[in-house]
Amino acid sequence: MALISPSRRLRRTPFSKGVEAAGVKSYTVYNRMLLPTVFESPEADYHHLKNHVQIWDVSCERQVELRGPDAGRLMQMLTPRDLRRMLPGQCYYVPIVDETGGMLNDPVAVKLAEDRWWISIADSDLLLWVKGIANGYRLDVLVDEPDVSPLAVQGPKAEDLVAKVFGPRVRDIRFFRFDWFQFQGMDLPIARSGYSKQGGFEIYVTDKRMGMKLWDALMEAGADMDVRAGCPNVIERIEGGLLSYGNDMTEDNTPHECGLGRFCDTATAIGCIGRDALLRVAKEGPVQQIRPIEIHGEKLPPVDYAWPVMAGTIRVGQITSAAYSPDFGVHVAIGMVKITHWDAGTELEVNTPDGPRKAVVREAFWA
Amino acid sequence: MALISPSRRLRRTPFSKGVEAAGVKSYTVYNRMLLPTVFESPEADYHHLKNHVQIWDVSCERQVELRGPDAGRLMQMLTPRDLRRMLPGQCYYVPIVDETGGMLNDPVAVKLAEDRWWISIADSDLLLWVKGIANGYRLDVLVDEPDVSPLAVQGPKAEDLVAKVFGPRVRDIRFFRFDWFQFQGMDLPIARSGYSKQGGFEIYVTDKRMGMKLWDALMEAGADMDVRAGCPNVIERIEGGLLSYGNDMTEDNTPHECGLGRFCDTATAIGCIGRDALLRVAKEGPVQQIRPIEIHGEKLPPVDYAWPVMAGTIRVGQITSAAYSPDFGVHVAIGMVKITHWDAGTELEVNTPDGPRKAVVREAFWA
Repeated sequence: MALISPSRRLRRTPFSKGVEAAGVKSYTVYNRMLLPTVFESPEADYHHLKNHVQIWDVSCERQVELRGPDAGRLMQMLTPRDLRRMLPGQCYYVPIVDETGGMLNDPVAVKLAEDRWWISIADSDLLLWVKGIANGYRLDVLVDEPDVSPLAVQGPKAEDLVAKVFGPRVRDIRFFRFDWFQFQGMDLPIARSGYSKQGGFEIYVTDKRMGMKLWDALMEAGADMDVRAGCPNVIERIEGGLLSYGNDMTEDNTPHECGLGRFCDTATAIGCIGRDALLRVAKEGPVQQIRPIEIHGEKLPPVDYAWPVMAGTIRVGQITSAAYSPDFGVHVAIGMVKITHWDAGTELEVNTPDGPRKAVVREAFWA
Repeated sequence: MALISPSRRLRRTPFSKGVEAAGVKSYTVYNRMLLPTVFESPEADYHHLKNHVQIWDVSCERQVELRGPDAGRLMQMLTPRDLRRMLPGQCYYVPIVDETGGMLNDPVAVKLAEDRWWISIADSDLLLWVKGIANGYRLDVLVDEPDVSPLAVQGPKAEDLVAKVFGPRVRDIRFFRFDWFQFQGMDLPIARSGYSKQGGFEIYVTDKRMGMKLWDALMEAGADMDVRAGCPNVIERIEGGLLSYGNDMTEDNTPHECGLGRFCDTATAIGCIGRDALLRVAKEGPVQQIRPIEIHGEKLPPVDYAWPVMAGTIRVGQITSAAYSPDFGVHVAIGMVKITHWDAGTELEVNTPDGPRKAVVREAFWA
């Protein structure tokens, strides 16, 4: 693997000093910001995440803040998910689509108040789309990127650790809800959410100068829980079927192709810019869709381009994420497969960089 | 330095196989695509670039294509540069600004025809801003990212090499103009441009399947010129005063702060979205501006955050790019300095990660 060249453009985070002190070995770049990918090894990080608790620098989940009288209207223009019943204190996973129904991002919308929202984004400059729409439609709303850097606490001991630092009230936070807490005079929302299936929280740090103080406080409080610096783990997230924008789907895909139809209320999401384009696919269903796929054989390299999925000599799909799972003893993978070959149990072949491999479509993700 | 984790999201390019075969040592990520940063070493790459000819994979300069009756109107909405006299066959460096005059990108606009433009972008998803504006203003224009991957040929022998492959007509291309050529049946524009001061061309490869064929043809034709795989060189680009969006300026800066006032015709750029916001700064001038700065002393690490520039105990600016120049025997640097301290000859101090360093504001860049 090659090295990554440091520059200001690949932004450091309020927690970078902690990440470096913990011995980060590799990064990816996400929203033009450093996101750690490996500390000890993907496998060691994976086992630790499933058994203990980790602190994750996910500052790269930048926020797009909408503030003003038209904030709610603008938010609904962005997504086919019906937001009318959403209350302050709730988080919604919202596909964001353009006028053709193509996905521009798959963020979490955080409703702070009727006239104030954060969109906690995946890897694309969603800020620019939202600013362009707000400007073009002359909406009465401020759109910018605030000083907010999420720090995730993930793993089976996450609740105990966060309760030790913020008090027992964190135990009352329900999944995809948030509540407000204080840390050394800083008000911050804490949500029960995160990019793993091991449970945990995302702490939205609202003052970058406080980042390392909170990092250190969590590390100190977790000393007797074997707390470690960690990061989203490629094996664990594929086992859990957590999609990655830019890997598993792009602007070429509709939410329905991504299996996100349950987050689309296309009939009632009045005002959504992509609504007309999505109405037909919402009714008739997509012709290709994301599926869990098991790949057999020797350990494969990372997926850095879409691997063709073949039925004989016909290309019927592609693999976009894959990793060898120590717990399941196979390669867990995410792929997009055509309707003719997407039924569970269908046997296919994947053209990997190491040659063709047998594969099978699964009924469900692993965890 | 840490490693970079491969994934489909950090897109490979049509030339990646050539880059890897040439022994690339490190990358940055630019527009969610791999951009090589070092082959032999920054210094060896630098000397070679200044004396010979290099082939650069700059596919990460993605294109935003505007096509349709409103393409020209939309292009003018994006920039304060007056485009009325621009002809097909010309390239213009165009600051792109939002409604507050903040820079969203500093691309090169390529006018293919009255109703067809490419915007060859720096590192931000400008596509999303342009799509949002086109949608909000209901313009009659298609906006997308076409299959176009620029390959640059840079260095003093660039003209000889490109003429060997495409014929002597390339010698007639004037600076920031382009003309159409053929390569194995593929039509492609070649512009006299590039992100170095050593002269050369950018070849807009219009079919990704042809990428390696062209790469190999250039390598073969240049065998007797010591042609090598190369990349934008941090030392050479700072010497030449070539700014880097995301490093030297961000959306917080106006074009005037970036010394790009000569590309702003704010009075006559009717329709530019940021025009109102820029009128005052265009008249009165900015209160801080980019300056060439010489930093003294031992070799410094790469700039991965803005280094404070001090006058005594007062912060008067920041360094955003710096590198030790073998040819000039000092650290060449780019910084943003307040009006009170920006005169050439002003002596300042820079707070680097290695401690304070003496520095001086220069009259002009080095090359």
